[in-house]
Amino acid sequence: MSCDFLGLAQPGVQKLSPYVPGKPVDELARELDLDPASIVKLASNENPLGPSPKVLEAISAELAELTRYPDGNGFALKRQLAAHCGVALNQVTLGNGSNDILELVARAYLAPGLNAVFSEHAFAVYPIATQAVGAQGRAVPAKDYGHDLDGMLAAIDENTRVIFVANPNNPTGTWFGPQALSDFLARVPERVLVVLDEAYIEYAEGDELPDGLEYLSRYPNLLVSRTFSKAYGLAALRVGYGISSAPVADVLNRVRQPFNVNSLALAAACAALSDSEYLADSRRVNDAGMAQLQDGLRAMDLSWIPSRGNFIAVDLGRESMPLYQALLREGVIVRPVANYGMPHHLRVSIGLPEENARFLEALAKVLDA
Amino acid sequence: MSCDFLGLAQPGVQKLSPYVPGKPVDELARELDLDPASIVKLASNENPLGPSPKVLEAISAELAELTRYPDGNGFALKRQLAAHCGVALNQVTLGNGSNDILELVARAYLAPGLNAVFSEHAFAVYPIATQAVGAQGRAVPAKDYGHDLDGMLAAIDENTRVIFVANPNNPTGTWFGPQALSDFLARVPERVLVVLDEAYIEYAEGDELPDGLEYLSRYPNLLVSRTFSKAYGLAALRVGYGISSAPVADVLNRVRQPFNVNSLALAAACAALSDSEYLADSRRVNDAGMAQLQDGLRAMDLSWIPSRGNFIAVDLGRESMPLYQALLREGVIVRPVANYGMPHHLRVSIGLPEENARFLEALAKVLDA
Repeated sequence: MSCDFLGLAQPGVQKLSPYVPGKPVDELARELDLDPASIVKLASNENPLGPSPKVLEAISAELAELTRYPDGNGFALKRQLAAHCGVALNQVTLGNGSNDILELVARAYLAPGLNAVFSEHAFAVYPIATQAVGAQGRAVPAKDYGHDLDGMLAAIDENTRVIFVANPNNPTGTWFGPQALSDFLARVPERVLVVLDEAYIEYAEGDELPDGLEYLSRYPNLLVSRTFSKAYGLAALRVGYGISSAPVADVLNRVRQPFNVNSLALAAACAALSDSEYLADSRRVNDAGMAQLQDGLRAMDLSWIPSRGNFIAVDLGRESMPLYQALLREGVIVRPVANYGMPHHLRVSIGLPEENARFLEALAKVLDA
Repeated sequence: MSCDFLGLAQPGVQKLSPYVPGKPVDELARELDLDPASIVKLASNENPLGPSPKVLEAISAELAELTRYPDGNGFALKRQLAAHCGVALNQVTLGNGSNDILELVARAYLAPGLNAVFSEHAFAVYPIATQAVGAQGRAVPAKDYGHDLDGMLAAIDENTRVIFVANPNNPTGTWFGPQALSDFLARVPERVLVVLDEAYIEYAEGDELPDGLEYLSRYPNLLVSRTFSKAYGLAALRVGYGISSAPVADVLNRVRQPFNVNSLALAAACAALSDSEYLADSRRVNDAGMAQLQDGLRAMDLSWIPSRGNFIAVDLGRESMPLYQALLREGVIVRPVANYGMPHHLRVSIGLPEENARFLEALAKVLDA
């Protein structure tokens, strides 16, 4: 007789359904016996530009040190981030992707009997990280696919410790303005940590979105999380960061693994942060691709959720899963979002002009079929 | 008035003292205004050979995909590891270093009210991971600096869920044989997960140590954790793995972050695993360096703990902290182990012949001073 090691796991863990990522190109190539080079992947909000030469140079320079442990303090990157964000070194927490930051928050501040508030149609990692530590997740119904900030405030009770808000939100692309954020922060009880997820903020700068960092000095219960995986083009390397008051950063730094970000990732992120040209290109390509996709969708009489991210959620007016499958057969990978409560939508990442065209063509074809 | 975000953290987290890594070369260079190239670091059990050319090639080949997310399933590496270890794919868990594997175990199977058993003078991450989830750590007094396996069995009670054993053990280098492991596993209650940490096993193969993998089929409560950071020379990249029964691997894979191991790390580990030449070199250099260090220590009338790792704990017969500091001023970084309950020892990693010689010279000098 042998023991039940699922049953012995913590109750929160037993009920965990892991995050479902975008389908990798190699996997689809294996499954359908396709040439990987012929496949267009617009499924994971990845940067279509490919790696920045400056980043590649920084990685090369670091390769001689491959047998050495990373700097566990991430000193060089933290110093650069502190300057970039206008904060002190002790307000920075580095993460193995911003996913790590979200989990560190959950492990530090949530537990059975406590709860976290987030929005319907928000990033899947909020409920997963909450569930993993056995806390209760409270999904607040969305308003026009965006955050209902008033509703979220109303969902806070005496056991709420964390509230996750994303601006822009993934997978909907929705956003809120400075006034809405001000009003919201003023009303969140000070013992509730506000995690403002700005993974896509670089695509929206200069628009009507607030810069979360500007609210840090007034709100010691605010943490802004950001990532190098999107506009900075380092998804492969897993680097994210949190900026918060020093006490929150102190706690998260206790909880994080001693070498959570690896050496090549640290070096690449330092190079990426000062590569303003790459960032500007990312933004330019994204703006153009967004217009291209919208034109194409309009021509097909399809609607979408207005988005400030590097992706767009298209409303297909019917079950989207069969269309997702049909697109796969055309060699185009997008993201089904039924598991986000959006069974009629598909989320499409914005790619290079030719990738966007391939998607639009394939979509027209499968809609016609 | 602002809230106390240390006080709001989970009780286990509040009492966490983070892991203290070996002092980085750059940090010492900054502090003492030394040329980094003149510093010898024998503090983190790193591989002194430098990176393998095959690994560098594999990383280069992966760089074009830097903007893409890693394969969250780590399919290629898991397939290779499963073949290497003679297990099924669903028995493998990949970790961001084996540190990640140890933490996944703690998060899955420990909680307040439960406890984990480990040895005195064992790896600091066992008590830290236990503490982080609010469980009780039970350190069992060592026997001649090694594990007292009988004592550890006796420390198991009805709330014990995990027992950590390391073979060889870090920072002492001590080990136990196949008979001891057999007897031990036969007596551990089947609901207690045995984490057999074999981070240094590649340095000891063919010696009188057991291969933990051979016990997996008999013990569904056994997890063997291993790493690419030592003999495989990939400390910078953070890749470790756990091999266990499928149900335990299923649970750990639910708990791990979706992209815990990054793309370059996955590619490098695949290359390293098939690079038997590099592994043989690592072993040869280590055996030679161990002999060199022991000869030198003998000449100084110093004793040490016999070790099967890539390091040796030297007994200085007095408070070692001042000697550690004096060695730093000589540009030699070793590891103080007072925080491991060994205030008279220093742990020295085995380096290249010239590095070992630099250490021996510097040690002779500071002992004479």
